[in-house]
Amino acid sequence: MNILVLGAGQLARMMSLAGTPLDLVTLAYDAGTDKVIDPVSFKQYDMSLTAAISWADSITAEFEHIPLPVLALCEQSGKFYPGAEAIATGGDRAKEKALLDKANVPSAPYRLITQQAHFDEAVESLGLPLVIKTCQAGYDGKGQWRLKTLADKAAVWSEMAAFLAAGTDAYPHAILAEKMIPFDREVSIIGVRSQSGEIRIYPLTENQHTNGVLTLSIAGKEKAQIQAQAEQAFSAVADALNYVGVLAIEFFDVAGQLLVNEIAPRVHNSGHWTQQGCHVSQFENHMRAIAGLPLGNTKLLRATAMVNVLGQAAIPREVLAISDVTSHWYGKSAKPGRKMGHINVSAANLHQLGERLAELAEILPEADYPGVAATAQALVLN
Amino acid sequence: MNILVLGAGQLARMMSLAGTPLDLVTLAYDAGTDKVIDPVSFKQYDMSLTAAISWADSITAEFEHIPLPVLALCEQSGKFYPGAEAIATGGDRAKEKALLDKANVPSAPYRLITQQAHFDEAVESLGLPLVIKTCQAGYDGKGQWRLKTLADKAAVWSEMAAFLAAGTDAYPHAILAEKMIPFDREVSIIGVRSQSGEIRIYPLTENQHTNGVLTLSIAGKEKAQIQAQAEQAFSAVADALNYVGVLAIEFFDVAGQLLVNEIAPRVHNSGHWTQQGCHVSQFENHMRAIAGLPLGNTKLLRATAMVNVLGQAAIPREVLAISDVTSHWYGKSAKPGRKMGHINVSAANLHQLGERLAELAEILPEADYPGVAATAQALVLN
Repeated sequence: MNILVLGAGQLARMMSLAGTPLDLVTLAYDAGTDKVIDPVSFKQYDMSLTAAISWADSITAEFEHIPLPVLALCEQSGKFYPGAEAIATGGDRAKEKALLDKANVPSAPYRLITQQAHFDEAVESLGLPLVIKTCQAGYDGKGQWRLKTLADKAAVWSEMAAFLAAGTDAYPHAILAEKMIPFDREVSIIGVRSQSGEIRIYPLTENQHTNGVLTLSIAGKEKAQIQAQAEQAFSAVADALNYVGVLAIEFFDVAGQLLVNEIAPRVHNSGHWTQQGCHVSQFENHMRAIAGLPLGNTKLLRATAMVNVLGQAAIPREVLAISDVTSHWYGKSAKPGRKMGHINVSAANLHQLGERLAELAEILPEADYPGVAATAQALVLN
Repeated sequence: MNILVLGAGQLARMMSLAGTPLDLVTLAYDAGTDKVIDPVSFKQYDMSLTAAISWADSITAEFEHIPLPVLALCEQSGKFYPGAEAIATGGDRAKEKALLDKANVPSAPYRLITQQAHFDEAVESLGLPLVIKTCQAGYDGKGQWRLKTLADKAAVWSEMAAFLAAGTDAYPHAILAEKMIPFDREVSIIGVRSQSGEIRIYPLTENQHTNGVLTLSIAGKEKAQIQAQAEQAFSAVADALNYVGVLAIEFFDVAGQLLVNEIAPRVHNSGHWTQQGCHVSQFENHMRAIAGLPLGNTKLLRATAMVNVLGQAAIPREVLAISDVTSHWYGKSAKPGRKMGHINVSAANLHQLGERLAELAEILPEADYPGVAATAQALVLN
């Protein structure tokens, strides 16, 4: 069976690696260069997008900011999962909020802003501080404003107005203002929905971000009550979208109450730990779902943490001497801050996981790998 | 780091899949066609063997019957693991026996035969029945004779004589006669030795053969005493060969005493269960060893069984609905009896493993997948 992935980065690569043993052959379409490539060897294929679409039995995406003409072609083929509506929702905060409201899933109060009157009303009714984000562009901390005091309102509005004015009739710009709610931590839920509507959900993951980018995830330490809340939100969103494949939902944990931060209609960085922490990873389950195969086990196999490798040219080889540490390298050329790979650490229990993370922290500099030492200490003391 | 594998079958493919996340790029050399290919996509590279050898940082092999000129070229490069001597030993029963004698590792009594007088002496001193095998060619049940009664001696000798006469000065033919020893079962040990001589050994595997071909393996049910015997044999053989990489040793279990049947200087079919049964598989550990990376954990993670898929055009998809069943497909064109893929089944304990194998046996016909139902029953009753 042939799978085409829109996007040719590490997510396509790991989908391909997971699909190969299932007899799924994967090619990736790089929208930036308009090329079809093998996402593992990066070897280029002499194949147009149209030819790749007819070659494929199923089509999926590794990111949500896909050029609309490409998305339309894929949708027309009738083979595209999770579907254009899900991709559009993941790529547009206004659609995302509308979906959450419809599915009755809690998130922070918000206002949609396309003109100054909306902004004035938002400041008035939601109150400060506000988190303000462009609806369609920007992720990982780019394209955002924070309004903390009224004194800054005019300056922020002038930047917002410039962004709104840059929109066109075909691609209108919009902005979403959300009440900034102090939260205790960020968690996410990853799950998978099959073509027949069956849902399987992984254990909740606790995530640490540094400068808006995920740096560390841990799975295997959540209570049943909070897992149940996340699962309810997952099922409501996945069913509302008639979703097929892996879907990720990021939450703020506000004193035990989960508020949705963001939806990602794809395999997700905060689910990379499933490669070693579960019998069937998010990548394999996504491939199973879009290929119409039975879904795999999503239960926790072992407590597992994931550490992102950002901008480094290699994973230090001595890391592999630590027991049950697994390297995942993406084969990309190094750039500052770029996601180059990740390290999974597994253990029989959380205490042992802390000990292994402590060994890891001795090798990895805190500046490049923030939070590893502190997380290790917290797990060992617990 | 670049890895060249001699041989372009499923073992090269699974080495490549295991090496990719370690930042190891693998190409395979198919000696039959003299082509360099990607062992996962099967895409052909416009590269000669000589060019591939200089491209590679490390070279290894997926089988032991490599044409001597190819082996010589690789050995000259200084990058070949486990080394020509180990490959030659694995591909020649006379060398294998000499090694076992030197390393003081028990195996069945034998005689080397290159003329009729040797054969007469073997029959006389070893007694009947005898298992007679060509030293270099043949595996998986091909190129063998069994002499059970003296009445058959002349007929068997005439076939043996024809084989011996077909040898040349450059490639002399030889035959090895072994006393046939009744055994209770066949087991194997897989382990890995690093460039610095560190050894790590997986749990012993019990193997079932049908018509001379492996059909089923189970790991996770062996006692410490028999594991210790196998580990001692492994270390003696690996050290004697100054071995680097994964090595497999097959044994006959004769009332708790292990006698070596065969040595395979490579990753081995009876170690495929390690992909799900251990944190680090035989494929990853082989790649780590030849790349000079630290070795990974070889302890049992979960009781796991492997079922070979022989000649079937696909793995039935409903198999994937059974919990913790993993498909490994090789992407080859189907031929009767050909190794097409394998199925790994994992469980928290042997009883649960038996239950899952019983589910599997309901889907897989006994004629195509012998022994699954009986093994399931034995595990559940135990």
